[in-house]
Amino acid sequence: MKEKISVGLIQMTMSEKTGENVEKAVGMVERAADRGARIVCLPELFATRYFCQSHNDSNFDLAIGRDDPLLKRFMKLAERRKVALVVPFFERSGPGLYFNSSMVINSDGTEAGLYRKTHIPDDPSFHEKYYFAPGDLGFKAFDLGFIKVGVLICWDQWFPEAARLTAMMGADIIFYPSAIGLLPDERGSEGEKMRQAWITVQRGNAIANGLFVAAVNRVGCEGNADGGGIDFFGSSFIAGPLGEIIDSASETEEQVIVAKIDLSLIEKTRRTWPFFRDRRIDLYGGITSR
Amino acid sequence: MKEKISVGLIQMTMSEKTGENVEKAVGMVERAADRGARIVCLPELFATRYFCQSHNDSNFDLAIGRDDPLLKRFMKLAERRKVALVVPFFERSGPGLYFNSSMVINSDGTEAGLYRKTHIPDDPSFHEKYYFAPGDLGFKAFDLGFIKVGVLICWDQWFPEAARLTAMMGADIIFYPSAIGLLPDERGSEGEKMRQAWITVQRGNAIANGLFVAAVNRVGCEGNADGGGIDFFGSSFIAGPLGEIIDSASETEEQVIVAKIDLSLIEKTRRTWPFFRDRRIDLYGGITSR
Repeated sequence: MKEKISVGLIQMTMSEKTGENVEKAVGMVERAADRGARIVCLPELFATRYFCQSHNDSNFDLAIGRDDPLLKRFMKLAERRKVALVVPFFERSGPGLYFNSSMVINSDGTEAGLYRKTHIPDDPSFHEKYYFAPGDLGFKAFDLGFIKVGVLICWDQWFPEAARLTAMMGADIIFYPSAIGLLPDERGSEGEKMRQAWITVQRGNAIANGLFVAAVNRVGCEGNADGGGIDFFGSSFIAGPLGEIIDSASETEEQVIVAKIDLSLIEKTRRTWPFFRDRRIDLYGGITSR
Repeated sequence: MKEKISVGLIQMTMSEKTGENVEKAVGMVERAADRGARIVCLPELFATRYFCQSHNDSNFDLAIGRDDPLLKRFMKLAERRKVALVVPFFERSGPGLYFNSSMVINSDGTEAGLYRKTHIPDDPSFHEKYYFAPGDLGFKAFDLGFIKVGVLICWDQWFPEAARLTAMMGADIIFYPSAIGLLPDERGSEGEKMRQAWITVQRGNAIANGLFVAAVNRVGCEGNADGGGIDFFGSSFIAGPLGEIIDSASETEEQVIVAKIDLSLIEKTRRTWPFFRDRRIDLYGGITSR
């Protein structure tokens, strides 16, 4: 029953205005749908600038509930265009409890489910532990009928455990909505090594699990008050079960990627390299220790 | 106390004669030592051809005990040249019990310990489940004084759990002695994708764990009675904690690689990307299920 599916990746810049970002995202989803995409993913926290560059408690005002009109709008878009969506958002779950989340929306406009970013970074200019509680929903694969979709968010991409557990839930593809870039002192050859490492570790996750991965990053520079800022490096890509790059985006420009993927390659690849047969589950207990 | 260390990788072809293979390996270790290598790794099962292409119970005669003169010879070589060694061998542990093992030898010629291949493949022309019991010693890092060394063998390279647990034992570098290549019907563009996948998944292991990896493969074609055979693809390489290739060998020729690695990069890289801080050990329990 597995077939070829067109997948859309939205690489975009964000302004200070949520309304503008949402309009732009809607327009880019429409373009992906025009080109035949049956599922489209937006970048992490696409509705705002990457506010985690600083500690500022007014930024919590940017968070929205799971029933917010913004999400309803994307549900209607999904229904109208018959396209499934992965929509990242800054989630207010309750007073003082916030998550870095993504809603998965079926192509009939209903909610398929929610994923909350599991691994929360906290590094210079990425103060996420201040804003987000660690995700509490575990790893998931959402069955959309025509494809099973895993979602992991940005920092999650560096943790092979997350990809493995998502694959074990049955995912055909893992989307990685992201907001990753370089700090001013990382530009140059060191930064290029870091960008390559980001691509390579995700291709490694595809290979080790025999599935597709799609990394969907923001692009452009977002400054901050102290003159630092982050150069988001774009470079969104989609890779197959052998880690082969199927399509990739620019390092500097907004871009809509629509790529056709052949889901039958998952079974084919896993027959050639049956890693799931040979996992030594009797020896992996140490994974749950620090 | 961490310093720059020269590491040797021996990529070689094997004949039908164990004596010839051992002489060649000794010579190549000597060359690596001449060039300053302080630790050298040989390919998987380097003393013989890759006999797992067929089921043949006379091949069990190729196995040796842990106290075999072959291993003593490498212990003496290590002592004489003051070089640590990773020496793979077909281990006879007892009647009817065989492992695919590697002995780690200190640079004073003493044994540092043993690793037994954990993940055993069984695929066309790779009938390893017939010959080898699954390794029962778990994942290890051997402290050689100047470096902590993890060893994983070939098929182990595809399992991120193995790299993670070896890293958690404190390894600075993981050696992957290997015997991997292509079957006749895999030559061409599909085979090139597979070779790239092999390189990429190991670079991914380096990145996800912030350590060095060294893949040490055999090279050349070894035929079998039915005219099939395996084209071992060489391509041995050593990569750093960002997955950057430090040096790599030919796809077709024997080669001694000696590469200098800077162990201080491990701490530096892990400070920039502190994955070990952020692992969600409360959510990884599923890793121990099939």
